[in-house]
Amino acid sequence: MAEFALIELIRERTAVERDDVRLGIGDDAALVVVPAGAELVVCTDMMVAGVHFPEATKPFDVGWKSLAVNLSDLAAMGATPAWATLGLAMPVADQAWVAAYADGFAALARQFGLALVGGDTTRGPLTISVTVHGFVEVGMALRRDGACVGDVVCVTGTLGDAAAGLRISLAEQGQSDDESRTLLDRLNRPVPRVDAGLALRGCATACIDISDGLIADLGHICYRSQVGAEINSAALPSSAQLRGFTGDESHLSLQLHGGDDYELCFTLPESSHSEILHRLHSTGIAATVIGRIVKGSGVRVSDATGRAIAVEKSGWEHFSP
Amino acid sequence: MAEFALIELIRERTAVERDDVRLGIGDDAALVVVPAGAELVVCTDMMVAGVHFPEATKPFDVGWKSLAVNLSDLAAMGATPAWATLGLAMPVADQAWVAAYADGFAALARQFGLALVGGDTTRGPLTISVTVHGFVEVGMALRRDGACVGDVVCVTGTLGDAAAGLRISLAEQGQSDDESRTLLDRLNRPVPRVDAGLALRGCATACIDISDGLIADLGHICYRSQVGAEINSAALPSSAQLRGFTGDESHLSLQLHGGDDYELCFTLPESSHSEILHRLHSTGIAATVIGRIVKGSGVRVSDATGRAIAVEKSGWEHFSP
Repeated sequence: MAEFALIELIRERTAVERDDVRLGIGDDAALVVVPAGAELVVCTDMMVAGVHFPEATKPFDVGWKSLAVNLSDLAAMGATPAWATLGLAMPVADQAWVAAYADGFAALARQFGLALVGGDTTRGPLTISVTVHGFVEVGMALRRDGACVGDVVCVTGTLGDAAAGLRISLAEQGQSDDESRTLLDRLNRPVPRVDAGLALRGCATACIDISDGLIADLGHICYRSQVGAEINSAALPSSAQLRGFTGDESHLSLQLHGGDDYELCFTLPESSHSEILHRLHSTGIAATVIGRIVKGSGVRVSDATGRAIAVEKSGWEHFSP
Repeated sequence: MAEFALIELIRERTAVERDDVRLGIGDDAALVVVPAGAELVVCTDMMVAGVHFPEATKPFDVGWKSLAVNLSDLAAMGATPAWATLGLAMPVADQAWVAAYADGFAALARQFGLALVGGDTTRGPLTISVTVHGFVEVGMALRRDGACVGDVVCVTGTLGDAAAGLRISLAEQGQSDDESRTLLDRLNRPVPRVDAGLALRGCATACIDISDGLIADLGHICYRSQVGAEINSAALPSSAQLRGFTGDESHLSLQLHGGDDYELCFTLPESSHSEILHRLHSTGIAATVIGRIVKGSGVRVSDATGRAIAVEKSGWEHFSP
């Protein structure tokens, strides 16, 4: 039966041994053990062909990214990844596609020692729903609702690369130079900032991953923390590849509204932020101060001279065609 | 933004309070607490419009069933339900549909005190992926791989009702009499046998839920337990409604191959099965002996006189058009 052949293929190609998996793929459900003193962290992200990725995206990249977007949510909570389940709907039982998908998923899963413990495959329009599980010590999770007036706002890495990569991907040309390949990799194979999330436990007052764009996601922190934020556009970290990218849109727009960066946006107390950022940098985690939490609501952007820049409020909108 | 309105709608309509939910819908991930001494039980089932349910199915029923099929997997493990996450892709942000969907989901969730703690909504062909979580005491989970030669094979409830309901549903007529409504309810609002699963902990040697049809699902027990099974067709429990149902297919075929029953199929030691079944019956759980585990492999069916009945091996095949 096609379904069982696919499940076996996925099981073999994603195999990761973990002592805390008592029963993995192949029964009605998986059995796993959460360590004592830990809270379980759970999230689900769905990806639909033609909505979240171009139909022609390589299955390896779809596999990688479908896990990456979920691990990014765990990172934003300061959690240690542990297990995943996979719901996979596809039009026909395409073994080659599934093998490459599983390889991409597994390549990232192995970096974090994450085990795929169950799921479901079915016929349907190409849709992937991954649920990931991780742990965090009781009370230590990073949340969206703890930002305070006066906190500094920071981001890991650089912003706008994935949005530039999407433009390159859709243009279907000029994809072969090193700069373009780097930007395409940022789109297709984002590396979730799990290490940064772990390092921020006990330090950050709020944290979120940037999936829908900086303005939208920092807006979520503001909404949940009942504060506002002011961002300095000149402080936004840019990669050399983005600086070399030419397109119709401004780099600033890609950095503010482009989704799919999967960097972390977080807030730190003014008093300790230098020391925390120094410690992050010393362990190889790049992070940049981009603004400050203020009274009020919403996110405002100004340039280096302090002049306000008009920005749209919304980011990536799943229900826009 | 449409997505956040939908999430808020789902959150409000499915609200269930649980002390072990430290952070529910609205952050990057949910935070929950697994009780000490318990294993976490996790499974994911996906439903695609036009594949798992007719497009015209009422959204309330889709909501109910999308949770029921997952709770049925927890039941088959002997687990106590706790939390779920929901991945929902739909073509347009249809608030009325989502409200009715959430009501159906919540109606069943409240029966089991299950909290929806997170998920994702997005644009795409109507596809639902639910992941459920439950607990079971360490080492007490029911599995597929423990059936032994000589064990008796049992099922809860009655078989074939949902398959008859599907025929009625697709015929789009004769749906108004009491018998048809009962069969349609068995299709659209299956009640997962959570109580039976809990009662079978420490008793059943193997257990599975019947989602793909008796032959296919008992076949999974046989495969994983490295045994065969012999079923007596005359012993299969039938509802009065199925006995009154007229259609092209034989009732036996519906009972052996029809999916969507969501009853439990389980095996009990010969020596203790009478006592266990008596205890189940005394707590209102109907279960029937339908056959026996034998040496060999695969499932064989014979009639009351012991004459073999030829059966197809396969059940519901997700990748058949």
